[in-house]
Amino acid sequence: MFESAELGHSIEKAAYDQEVPALREALLDAQFDLASAKAFPVIILVAGVDGAGKSATVNTLNEWMDPRHILTHGFSEPSDEELERPHMWRFWRQLPPKGKMGIFDGSWYAWPILERAHGRIKDARLAQSLDQIRRFEEMLINEGALVLKFWMHLSRQAQKKRLRKLESDPLTRWRVTDRDWKHFEMYDAFREVAERTLRSTSTAEAPWTVVEATDPRYQRLTVGRTLLERLRARLDSPAPPSAAVRAPPAAPSIDGLNILRTLDLTRKTEKAEYETELETYQGRLNLLTRHKAFKDHNVVMVFEGADAAGKGGGIRRITQAIDARLYEITPIAAPTEEERAQPYLWRFWRHLPRRGRFAIFDRSWYGRVLVERVEGFCSEADWMRAYGEINDFEDQLARSGAIVAKFWLQISREEQLRRFHERQESKFKRFKITDEDWRNREKWDAYETAVCDMLDRTSTEIAPWTLVESEDKHYGRLKILRTLCARIEEAL
Amino acid sequence: MFESAELGHSIEKAAYDQEVPALREALLDAQFDLASAKAFPVIILVAGVDGAGKSATVNTLNEWMDPRHILTHGFSEPSDEELERPHMWRFWRQLPPKGKMGIFDGSWYAWPILERAHGRIKDARLAQSLDQIRRFEEMLINEGALVLKFWMHLSRQAQKKRLRKLESDPLTRWRVTDRDWKHFEMYDAFREVAERTLRSTSTAEAPWTVVEATDPRYQRLTVGRTLLERLRARLDSPAPPSAAVRAPPAAPSIDGLNILRTLDLTRKTEKAEYETELETYQGRLNLLTRHKAFKDHNVVMVFEGADAAGKGGGIRRITQAIDARLYEITPIAAPTEEERAQPYLWRFWRHLPRRGRFAIFDRSWYGRVLVERVEGFCSEADWMRAYGEINDFEDQLARSGAIVAKFWLQISREEQLRRFHERQESKFKRFKITDEDWRNREKWDAYETAVCDMLDRTSTEIAPWTLVESEDKHYGRLKILRTLCARIEEAL
Repeated sequence: MFESAELGHSIEKAAYDQEVPALREALLDAQFDLASAKAFPVIILVAGVDGAGKSATVNTLNEWMDPRHILTHGFSEPSDEELERPHMWRFWRQLPPKGKMGIFDGSWYAWPILERAHGRIKDARLAQSLDQIRRFEEMLINEGALVLKFWMHLSRQAQKKRLRKLESDPLTRWRVTDRDWKHFEMYDAFREVAERTLRSTSTAEAPWTVVEATDPRYQRLTVGRTLLERLRARLDSPAPPSAAVRAPPAAPSIDGLNILRTLDLTRKTEKAEYETELETYQGRLNLLTRHKAFKDHNVVMVFEGADAAGKGGGIRRITQAIDARLYEITPIAAPTEEERAQPYLWRFWRHLPRRGRFAIFDRSWYGRVLVERVEGFCSEADWMRAYGEINDFEDQLARSGAIVAKFWLQISREEQLRRFHERQESKFKRFKITDEDWRNREKWDAYETAVCDMLDRTSTEIAPWTLVESEDKHYGRLKILRTLCARIEEAL
Repeated sequence: MFESAELGHSIEKAAYDQEVPALREALLDAQFDLASAKAFPVIILVAGVDGAGKSATVNTLNEWMDPRHILTHGFSEPSDEELERPHMWRFWRQLPPKGKMGIFDGSWYAWPILERAHGRIKDARLAQSLDQIRRFEEMLINEGALVLKFWMHLSRQAQKKRLRKLESDPLTRWRVTDRDWKHFEMYDAFREVAERTLRSTSTAEAPWTVVEATDPRYQRLTVGRTLLERLRARLDSPAPPSAAVRAPPAAPSIDGLNILRTLDLTRKTEKAEYETELETYQGRLNLLTRHKAFKDHNVVMVFEGADAAGKGGGIRRITQAIDARLYEITPIAAPTEEERAQPYLWRFWRHLPRRGRFAIFDRSWYGRVLVERVEGFCSEADWMRAYGEINDFEDQLARSGAIVAKFWLQISREEQLRRFHERQESKFKRFKITDEDWRNREKWDAYETAVCDMLDRTSTEIAPWTLVESEDKHYGRLKILRTLCARIEEAL
């Protein structure tokens, strides 16, 4: 992996000075085209060994191009707000929008490499991390991002020479600390982990470029040329990257039986019982939110279901039970302009709660495999890959301590019709019913197929779907509350 | 202030049960109209004494209305990200967009009241805080927000009774802590400061509603009715609030002399000297950013100037000298959809840097008193009030430790014409010149008047403008660097 970056590459000053002006001009041109088209973002990772000129490279890129269109982020210790979300949150929040470049000095690779090199995690955990990273980058690429990854390399010998040289000069001696020498002692361990990491994350769409860092001129030119080449290629033939489809959705069952149709919609709770139970579970939920251990968790709730199935009513029975400062409800409608300039899941990442809090999504990221699939708002490849992306997302939520509770509310076609009419007649609820609801209703069967696929492919042990028979509102609401309480109790 | 909230107000259950359904329906209707029109946001502050049902009130509002359109925020200890910005940053980041309600449980009033009640600040500091709050709320109102402020009140006697009652019941005893009794001992001090605060911040447009909190039914109905009444009134007669104009801008000077015309644009630095000086100041700037004391500050830079005056070049000479991870450049173009749904200054607040970092604005909040004024993009009242709002904003920046450095780059009309032609001929720079630039050029005189007003009204001791003679690029760039270094040195 690193052999060809230990050959002593270098560029003469004259050759460098001759090439740079044309390179800068071409980079500026490409950057201008990128900003005008606003078609995709460019994500540049700068990683590598200590002292291999990572920051200098970042500075050079900012100097050579128009820094107004470059967002540079250095990552060191996470802030407390970052610590209370999944590990990747801090990177999601800094993703560049379409038309911009984001330079990541330090990135999602730092944690697994350092933890493994220091022996704080085992090989299996490293492999798992790298697998997650590969899928994350695959998602970025499928969303249109151009991803460039640079690894700045210094051989053991070159690293030692560099530290010695800095030490020998009184003006630079202060830059070499004990920590640097300690890191140097770890050189071999670090190199081994890095090599394994690069090998396993160098994909066709997001390959690593290993850059020898002994000669700054060589280093800068290599980075500049690589960036130009890949950016230009992408600008000039903007073929959308072919999305990797992991597996086709299940074929509709041939006997017409599916999980939705097996639900017993006649389940019912009488009013008196409902009121007692409601109070019991709301009280229980309230106590759970004050439980000491709840401070280490948060709850991410998803409500999906047919129109008029009672999502709003279900949500309200939950929020009645908890302190209003502890929850945020995010109704999912059309994305904003800033959201459209980002990967699909970005708009949900931005609403993730801190610990001790609830995020309630009224419709959710499942829109991709429901309405967007049925209405043809995205390509088949897009919604097909969404299943895997969603599972990855929820996996990260769960691993960060979130309790992920997803509810599908089901009613019959007849009951829906009855509720539509009822809503139209009620002054109180008339705003809840629109022409779109009537149109959706005509696509009942297509939605049913989409829902069954969704349940098959995204009901996981850590983030299970709960099917809620909502024909009787009382029964449905209680089932939601009961399930939620049980999930939280289980986690505490 | 509190007398009429100590009368023992209460509402019978029957009357309450009869009124609530109609009130909820009317509130839901109003909320629906608010969300459809997206014309203004509603900001509801819930403040008051301990145990006066603040959270219960917030919950009730969420229960009565559609919680999907309500953003509720509780404020306790600020996060580390919040601590590194001006005090008001945490409130700005949570402002509801147009069409939504934002409920603030705890607000910008908590700090001054508690600090004064505990004797940690003096009267003068309290007065200053309240003055700042008044201006902040005035800005919100001028930006169209409907601001409702509720103060939940309990008399000394009622407070004592409440604590005793909680203590006497084994089920609720845990809710009364030593801290509660300590707070109770401070009741009189707290009341006095609260009274003063309410009196001095009850304005015609954002009056306080003091609500007696002994009877929850009375309390809820009062809040609900007040909200409905004010929201309905605003929805039904959406007359824009008349902006308070503090003082008209200066009349153009009668002798044709102005500060821009007195600049000596013949100032020049020869190339050789420029290169030596550039290196000197860039080195000095770099060292300053590594100074230990710099970690307690951040730098907010504003670049304004005629088209082609050299803003980009000036910025680049600065960014060359500092670690790319330490700065973010924000080029100001048209606001995004999310930004348009917020007060004018919101889009700048969101880019404020953490400590130890630079925020560089390429054009800025001064657009309001320059391009928006000249082109008529906003009303006269809007740009007139902007001077004061901007001064308040920069004052908050400076008080939080920011070094605010503002540069106006000036060139002659002739030099601008020369540069426009030069740009059009250069492949390298052609994208920098647009039709708009030619149109702006025709309004040279109107811009000159606007700039002079701006300088007169916003060059303050804490955030002074530096006029940069940029006819000679070398001279201009050095002046910027020199000024910046001096400002930072002065602060450290």
